[in-house]
Amino acid sequence: MELAAFFPMLGELPEAERAKLADAAVYRRVPAGTVLHDGASGCTGLLLVASGQLRAYIFSPEGREITLYRLFERDVCLLSASCMIQSLQFDITVEAEKASEVWVIPAKVYQKAAESCAALANYTNQIMASRFSEVMWRVEQLLWKSMDKRLAGFLLEEAALEGGGTLHITHEKIANHLGTAREVVTRVLRDMQNEGLIRLSRGTVELTDEKRLRKLSAQ
Amino acid sequence: MELAAFFPMLGELPEAERAKLADAAVYRRVPAGTVLHDGASGCTGLLLVASGQLRAYIFSPEGREITLYRLFERDVCLLSASCMIQSLQFDITVEAEKASEVWVIPAKVYQKAAESCAALANYTNQIMASRFSEVMWRVEQLLWKSMDKRLAGFLLEEAALEGGGTLHITHEKIANHLGTAREVVTRVLRDMQNEGLIRLSRGTVELTDEKRLRKLSAQ
Repeated sequence: MELAAFFPMLGELPEAERAKLADAAVYRRVPAGTVLHDGASGCTGLLLVASGQLRAYIFSPEGREITLYRLFERDVCLLSASCMIQSLQFDITVEAEKASEVWVIPAKVYQKAAESCAALANYTNQIMASRFSEVMWRVEQLLWKSMDKRLAGFLLEEAALEGGGTLHITHEKIANHLGTAREVVTRVLRDMQNEGLIRLSRGTVELTDEKRLRKLSAQ
Repeated sequence: MELAAFFPMLGELPEAERAKLADAAVYRRVPAGTVLHDGASGCTGLLLVASGQLRAYIFSPEGREITLYRLFERDVCLLSASCMIQSLQFDITVEAEKASEVWVIPAKVYQKAAESCAALANYTNQIMASRFSEVMWRVEQLLWKSMDKRLAGFLLEEAALEGGGTLHITHEKIANHLGTAREVVTRVLRDMQNEGLIRLSRGTVELTDEKRLRKLSAQ
């Protein structure tokens, strides 16, 4: 697992910076369900995903979750290193959704390198802008789209990620992604089943009419 | 109106970069209501607020507005220069809420300076992180707070900005800030009036019990 293979940016840095980042990076292999970062854990550092799938989410005061974005192979999580950007004033939780391999670059080392290296600072900018854009996309969905359309979009996204039309997922988990109550998810899923879009059984949701789901999601 | 007075960062740049930014900056004085940037206008550039008050907001597909953040003297708007950050993939509208004076730095000039200057690139990062944090704060309000609490918070914010407890604002305008329908605002305001928190008259909202409004907003 070569760091450089998952972090091409490294090749564009001066030798001194490159060596410092590579020396400080820690490789971790974690099972699904591992919380890699949360507000209480302070400054974890940059997370580079070598394999697997991470999920970043926030909590309501009552403990309700809502997914902000997901990270896949070669993605970089910057918000887990929020201490290095003074103006970043909110907390997220990052969890491995599948068994994952990540490189962790300590925030202090990265920050020091970026202070003198414009290329790295501009790269940081691009990463932050990507996450900001993803969050804005989710926010617009949340604000302007009804739950049936958002749920149709979520089911299609999951089917694409899992590579199949039968999802092994509980209503509770879906609710946590979408920031709503389990009861709401159950009600909307039943409506969808009545309309022939999906078939429900214990612990699974089968997509039976992806074309109409796509149409619903795009409305 | 010296640019450097409103953009202290300028003093930390090498002479060559400083001169380029200062030469390219355009000073504008605009009346309240002027749209300084929107999705259609392409890449306006960085906006530095010398005086006045700007509002950044997004639109729903049906044309409903929602305020993301406001900018005051010495604040910098980066999202109006989204073209210079490739990964920034969403549009906002920026409008002068009050008569304002702004410096506009063309995106191309700023981007070129940041490419070779780590200090400027790291500064850009801090600005983006501030806006990202403000947007996250609004999103959390939107997601987890009921309309009466959000409205109480908005009225207090306005009173602080206007320096007085009598606001000259229509229900329509309040709805545009909060991303809801005018009818909803009218209903919640009437409830508040019945509870003695505010007094309504044509085109004004008078805060009659700021203490209880503060308590409501903080719940």
